[in-house]
Amino acid sequence: MTILAFACQRDTLSAALDRARRIVAARNTIPILSNLLLRLDANGTLTIKGTDLDIETTVHVENIDVVTAGATTVPAAAFAATVAKMATGRLQIDATDTALTVRAGRARTTFPTFPEQDFPDISDKHPTHTFTIPHFDLRRIYEKCDFAISQEETRYFLCGVFLRPIAGKLVATATDGHRLSRLELDMPDGAKDMPGIIIPDRTVSMFRELGDKEDLPIEVDLSERYIRLRSPKLTIYSKLVDGNYPDSERIIPRGNNQVAIVELDALMAAIDRLLVLTEKDTRRYRMEFTAGQITLFSKGDNGEAEDTIDAACDFDLTVGFNGKYLQDMCKTMVGPKLRLEMGDASAPPLIRDEGDDTREIVLMPMRV
Amino acid sequence: MTILAFACQRDTLSAALDRARRIVAARNTIPILSNLLLRLDANGTLTIKGTDLDIETTVHVENIDVVTAGATTVPAAAFAATVAKMATGRLQIDATDTALTVRAGRARTTFPTFPEQDFPDISDKHPTHTFTIPHFDLRRIYEKCDFAISQEETRYFLCGVFLRPIAGKLVATATDGHRLSRLELDMPDGAKDMPGIIIPDRTVSMFRELGDKEDLPIEVDLSERYIRLRSPKLTIYSKLVDGNYPDSERIIPRGNNQVAIVELDALMAAIDRLLVLTEKDTRRYRMEFTAGQITLFSKGDNGEAEDTIDAACDFDLTVGFNGKYLQDMCKTMVGPKLRLEMGDASAPPLIRDEGDDTREIVLMPMRV
Repeated sequence: MTILAFACQRDTLSAALDRARRIVAARNTIPILSNLLLRLDANGTLTIKGTDLDIETTVHVENIDVVTAGATTVPAAAFAATVAKMATGRLQIDATDTALTVRAGRARTTFPTFPEQDFPDISDKHPTHTFTIPHFDLRRIYEKCDFAISQEETRYFLCGVFLRPIAGKLVATATDGHRLSRLELDMPDGAKDMPGIIIPDRTVSMFRELGDKEDLPIEVDLSERYIRLRSPKLTIYSKLVDGNYPDSERIIPRGNNQVAIVELDALMAAIDRLLVLTEKDTRRYRMEFTAGQITLFSKGDNGEAEDTIDAACDFDLTVGFNGKYLQDMCKTMVGPKLRLEMGDASAPPLIRDEGDDTREIVLMPMRV
Repeated sequence: MTILAFACQRDTLSAALDRARRIVAARNTIPILSNLLLRLDANGTLTIKGTDLDIETTVHVENIDVVTAGATTVPAAAFAATVAKMATGRLQIDATDTALTVRAGRARTTFPTFPEQDFPDISDKHPTHTFTIPHFDLRRIYEKCDFAISQEETRYFLCGVFLRPIAGKLVATATDGHRLSRLELDMPDGAKDMPGIIIPDRTVSMFRELGDKEDLPIEVDLSERYIRLRSPKLTIYSKLVDGNYPDSERIIPRGNNQVAIVELDALMAAIDRLLVLTEKDTRRYRMEFTAGQITLFSKGDNGEAEDTIDAACDFDLTVGFNGKYLQDMCKTMVGPKLRLEMGDASAPPLIRDEGDDTREIVLMPMRV
């Protein structure tokens, strides 16, 4: 007996499947988690859902030619790959209790299915706060903070971006204990009383998928346990990291008074060049600040390197850094200049991007 | 004491290093094999050599500004990466007995060196045959035979392309026992008495590097033990595989008389689509030939698929193939049509490319 049947354009369905299945792992100990839920209503809206029990992604496709409204679940990877490889044009899809078949021309592929009821629903329905935020701001959280998120699962509370209101701004912070990135955003209406939340790394990296246009408003629902982000293309529902984020504001060294201004491009070129010759485990650089310049040194099994760049700078200081962390940071900067606010050799500097006054970066020094 | 010193353009040196170092492994139990030999003569020609003891690559750079002619060896990967990252423009290079320094502007990097005498010379100096062959033909050997070369080191004699004269043609053959690719080339002057040689897989894959222009003549020197290929850009010296190639001519089934003609694009699309649903280990397809069409079937854990393509064909036959092998083969074909000369269900077909009559391909069938 047919429980679901429809026709649609291959390209439309293929694009939707790609978005919905991004969080579906190829191998799962729970078989249903390898599947996508397809649900078609009588008005021609097809809802496609994928989940890994921490995150759920939902895509809607409109204007489907409905034959039989209904729902089922299919193996995500095989279904998406098959649809993508079908001839361009119209696809016919129909499902019985146990199998779903895709047809295009003389090609036909049949997948085993699980019933809709087996598909887990992780969505909590009671948001405490609702607001909209421009897609541009969410993308900036990803682009400017992602590099500093911890990858150490033992410090799970650092494995995400901490987002909370401070003095009329929405502040995003990421740190792995070696570096910290802080970003200030305009406060959306309705967010000023929101709790501090830790958004998991993987959810942050999906922010880009929400839209293509910068000014697209994204609807956000949240409580202390979850966040839901909704754009016309995609809905992301995600659990939040359940932990206490450290008091990151306190470790930002705003009183450093030795200031050096450098060209971002010159610093990046020097870092890049010297990174060839560092030890793989430490990536250590020595930086010597003197009047008008900074000299960088690195050393590894295959030799040693140095380079000097101009800097507006009038103090003497020798300090060590992880060159890879310097490089990661520079890649997120706009420039053309950076402002390095240095303490003494063992104190972390505060680094600012002259092209973007919403950012503050802290890098822990290494012993030299 | 300076034993080598010169100046040159970064881009010229960087491109030459990239070509010379391609066969230098990053980690070697013999440290000198991680190095490149640099030798500068008084006329301004810099010779750069890399080797892994089986293959040696040599690049010449002309018009170097000589300060001190001489030779040394430097760590290949670190030196090439550093040169590539120096500021564009002129580089200064000088070496003492124990170290080599590269300078550009205020950047300076120093590498430890080994003396020239430590660098192994594997080149044999007595070719028995010398001829020239267009680069186009060498590239075709790579493009049309590489996919069929065996990767099984226990059958080392199949881990290369067998090249020998047959009836006035130069014939290249590769096979891994499951498929065979045969290519006929025009006989170069001076090659008609050459012995049958097995050129190692890695050497074949370097043929592309010899030049950019198709009609570039490549000088070939060879004996039963080695081959040297020389273009203005690069010289490749390679040991040959020391073994007996099987009598591949005998297994090419030239008497098959059931002929099907298919469109390459249609066959590739069907294969591609069905490959999603095969078992990872066998990749098995069933192909059913009937009047005017071929129907393909595949099956895996996630479902089953079929597709039908038109074929000029007037016989009934069911035969099994490895779909991945079919796909590999199709990617090397020109089309627009293929000619499948079939035997019975257990006999290998001979496949011809209607756009390229220099090729013959054999695919072993699988039980269905």
